[in-house]
Amino acid sequence: MTVPPPQQAIDFCATMTDEQDEFAREMLERVSARWPLRTLQILQAAGGPLRFSRVLERVGGISQKVLTQTLRMLERDGLITRTLYPQVPPRVEYELTPLGYELLLQTVPLWHWIIEHLPAFTAARHEAAKR
Amino acid sequence: MTVPPPQQAIDFCATMTDEQDEFAREMLERVSARWPLRTLQILQAAGGPLRFSRVLERVGGISQKVLTQTLRMLERDGLITRTLYPQVPPRVEYELTPLGYELLLQTVPLWHWIIEHLPAFTAARHEAAKR
Repeated sequence: MTVPPPQQAIDFCATMTDEQDEFAREMLERVSARWPLRTLQILQAAGGPLRFSRVLERVGGISQKVLTQTLRMLERDGLITRTLYPQVPPRVEYELTPLGYELLLQTVPLWHWIIEHLPAFTAARHEAAKR
Repeated sequence: MTVPPPQQAIDFCATMTDEQDEFAREMLERVSARWPLRTLQILQAAGGPLRFSRVLERVGGISQKVLTQTLRMLERDGLITRTLYPQVPPRVEYELTPLGYELLLQTVPLWHWIIEHLPAFTAARHEAAKR
């Protein structure tokens, strides 16, 4: 573990209204959750639109129902688009929006930091298990 | 919304083992969740040790049971310390560790980005509600 900087106050925007704070927490919790994050990552890696069945395959381990809910939520928040092609059978494609891409980009430093510090978390758990 | 950068591939460390990937996702999901994040923020803002009852008061809206579970989990991962003073009645204090502080610091850019983009999320939801 690297030497931490001195603990200075962190500005978490105390000037927000309670409603804004609540909304921001909801978005943070949501995007960091397993399935939404993984779905965004899969769509990002695809580099273009993907059909539902392809997303299902690539996310892996998710049920159709949960994936449907996840995609709907991401679409509602403007992070992905859903395009219906009225053919037989109808084709539906999902694609990351610029907003979704930007959000994903913002998670990268935190994600890398966590990966870098996995040994510290593992060590802490071993210590805790001894107590 | 600002103009997004061109969508380039994002490196999410494909070289990790599945186990490391799983662990990193667990940590990310955990720290972004409502109560753990809020608890870490409260301990950070306190700038020193806090008794259980003070944490309970300041986190607000959390049950004793959920706060107990949250603190135990944060302690197990090395993000906070728990110190028991054997007096009558026993006093227990919680404090952010350097690792917890560093982790919290890493969430700040993402948190600020989300706050800055709340209007974009709100606009997307309004659009979605019209469909």
